[in-house]
Amino acid sequence: MLELRLVQGSLLKKVLEAIKDLVNDANFDCSSTGFSLQAMDSSHVALVALLLRSEGFEHYRCDRNISMGMNLNNMSKMLKCSGNDDIITIKADDGSDTVTFMFESPTQDKISDFEMKLMDIDSEHLGIPEAEYHAIVRMPSAEFAKICKDLSSIGDTVVISVTKEGVKFSTRGDIGTANIVVRQNTTVDKPEEATVIEMNEPVSLTFALRYMNSFTKATPLSNTVTISLSSELPVVVEYKIAEMGYIRFYLAPKIEEDEDETKPHV
Amino acid sequence: MLELRLVQGSLLKKVLEAIKDLVNDANFDCSSTGFSLQAMDSSHVALVALLLRSEGFEHYRCDRNISMGMNLNNMSKMLKCSGNDDIITIKADDGSDTVTFMFESPTQDKISDFEMKLMDIDSEHLGIPEAEYHAIVRMPSAEFAKICKDLSSIGDTVVISVTKEGVKFSTRGDIGTANIVVRQNTTVDKPEEATVIEMNEPVSLTFALRYMNSFTKATPLSNTVTISLSSELPVVVEYKIAEMGYIRFYLAPKIEEDEDETKPHV
Amino acid sequence: MLELRLVQGSLLKKVLEAIKDLVNDANFDCSSTGFSLQAMDSSHVALVALLLRSEGFEHYRCDRNISMGMNLNNMSKMLKCSGNDDIITIKADDGSDTVTFMFESPTQDKISDFEMKLMDIDSEHLGIPEAEYHAIVRMPSAEFAKICKDLSSIGDTVVISVTKEGVKFSTRGDIGTANIVVRQNTTVDKPEEATVIEMNEPVSLTFALRYMNSFTKATPLSNTVTISLSSELPVVVEYKIAEMGYIRFYLAPKIEEDEDETKPHV
Repeated sequence: MLELRLVQGSLLKKVLEAIKDLVNDANFDCSSTGFSLQAMDSSHVALVALLLRSEGFEHYRCDRNISMGMNLNNMSKMLKCSGNDDIITIKADDGSDTVTFMFESPTQDKISDFEMKLMDIDSEHLGIPEAEYHAIVRMPSAEFAKICKDLSSIGDTVVISVTKEGVKFSTRGDIGTANIVVRQNTTVDKPEEATVIEMNEPVSLTFALRYMNSFTKATPLSNTVTISLSSELPVVVEYKIAEMGYIRFYLAPKIEEDEDETKPHV
Repeated sequence: MLELRLVQGSLLKKVLEAIKDLVNDANFDCSSTGFSLQAMDSSHVALVALLLRSEGFEHYRCDRNISMGMNLNNMSKMLKCSGNDDIITIKADDGSDTVTFMFESPTQDKISDFEMKLMDIDSEHLGIPEAEYHAIVRMPSAEFAKICKDLSSIGDTVVISVTKEGVKFSTRGDIGTANIVVRQNTTVDKPEEATVIEMNEPVSLTFALRYMNSFTKATPLSNTVTISLSSELPVVVEYKIAEMGYIRFYLAPKIEEDEDETKPHV
Repeated sequence: MLELRLVQGSLLKKVLEAIKDLVNDANFDCSSTGFSLQAMDSSHVALVALLLRSEGFEHYRCDRNISMGMNLNNMSKMLKCSGNDDIITIKADDGSDTVTFMFESPTQDKISDFEMKLMDIDSEHLGIPEAEYHAIVRMPSAEFAKICKDLSSIGDTVVISVTKEGVKFSTRGDIGTANIVVRQNTTVDKPEEATVIEMNEPVSLTFALRYMNSFTKATPLSNTVTISLSSELPVVVEYKIAEMGYIRFYLAPKIEEDEDETKPHV
């Protein structure tokens, strides 16, 4: 028997909006430690990892580990029927082929039960090793989203280059080139407005903007985003979810490296 | 000669928005008692009845009963040209084949005259007898609109079941099922937030969500909606229009009754 | 070398939004007096003239007169990447085939460089003689925009008729006719809400609404619009740009004069 009661139900709505365009079907794994998901995007290029820790739920009962295959689009359709202030409870009986989402309005005058069929989904859980990154940038998530969106109007890829002074986002396309430099800045009124750079060595990596834009659908979940870069590793774009956990997106850099015109093409 | 001056002209704009998707062409009937309309939707399934009583107009002159055939889409185009605070006057000369909508801005600095051609429309006026209903539910109109919209993302029909405790809206579709229960609640801060159930006997009736969603276009006209149900009668979904009258939508229940899976299919 | 620093960078964004649908490619002319543009629309019916005087820039360096051919759609794509409070600097080296738009955020924490390729565009600069107009109407720009939009839902052309008392906008179409009269009114709380008519003799001219609607894209640039009419001249629709200059649109009247049904067709 599974029963997870989340007072801030709108978090779960935002989680689904963040991942449903990237992943069609996925297994949600439920254990005593939390409610989690790991899935490749449909073109097997990006990886998304979600964790909602059990402590973040008002009530968390998970008698045995269970993996529930869900169509994220259908799940999103159901969660959209919840009110923004509703309490959401996820319920499943042992061995059942359905999951129930219960929405309670704050006044308890409206109670909704949405029952969704589960799916069998083959998936292998990848172990993601802890890694050392050359550079870690923390910046306002809305700023990062605007940069990815703006650069998409010019080119298809973004070169992210980090130095101690700042992080540069560059692209080029048919109509011209664009360079956006965001400086390290920790003297801000609100901590979430800071741009903080931790750097061991400079990095410059190229990524497909299409995926970056997709990751920024998680912006409503957090005021800040953390981008961890290393030349041999996929970038990690992480959005913290309140006190409960995170969504992390992983994306391998493009081989054509930084497309810098000053370097000879091989 | 006809001259009807409506100070709160935006009401007429909202009326047109409420019915123009359901009905293409209709006769507006004008008599000494008021300005009214009765029309079937284009697929002859739903009926809409509108009444704006003469007392609600600042000035109401209607020398003789007159029926004016209008294309509601064209009428809506013209009314949309009025400002939200404009006074609207409907004018027609005896025997004229046009009607004029005059819009006066609150400062009287802008006066618009829109003249629309009338049409000949065959229509029979149905007598709608006063009826006793098994159950009458009054609830916030925005809540009802959200429920119809939410259920439409899951299924095509809604089963409305009323008991003394509350009203249940249910649907089922390919991806699962949904049940939304709204409890009777009269202890609210504002009377328009109450859900009030008057019940003589329990009812459970099935309706096409497509029409219900269409009816909810009248939501801007009133904070509350009244749903009157009886097993042998069309449901009446009524939106009161300020002190002036109402829009009522009538829709016959579906024969397949409540699609309850516990009942054997015939 | 060219370097024009505009503190209120959003003005330049609004200028592009105002003209990019009307004109595809155009030469921006830069001289010691200012930054200007003159171009016909793509169907060679309307003319747009833009002037941003050098005094309006915080810093204005233009070593020699230069004409830079730009695709306005691409330029608009780049300017949309600036923040609304950004300072925009336009830069070009002598003989370069590119122009650079630099965006500085108010806090200087984000600096963007967008470099766009220039184009060779043939254009002849028309001399526009100073003229006497029969009537000049100054009115709120939002009001004029709403009138053009509203009339477009009824007909394709607008007849603008000016008398001492007011200005009348009329149209007719398949569904009927519309007349909107705006009265002269100078006793308003805010000067930008006034409608002021200077008239030497009455005029009544017909214009294509399609172009008028296009001109009203400049509405965000100014609270007021000035419409200058003369029976032998193109109408001038002018939006002032803060203290800096203006956008002026010129459009020839339609020959079919005022389409007034009371006059015999020639």
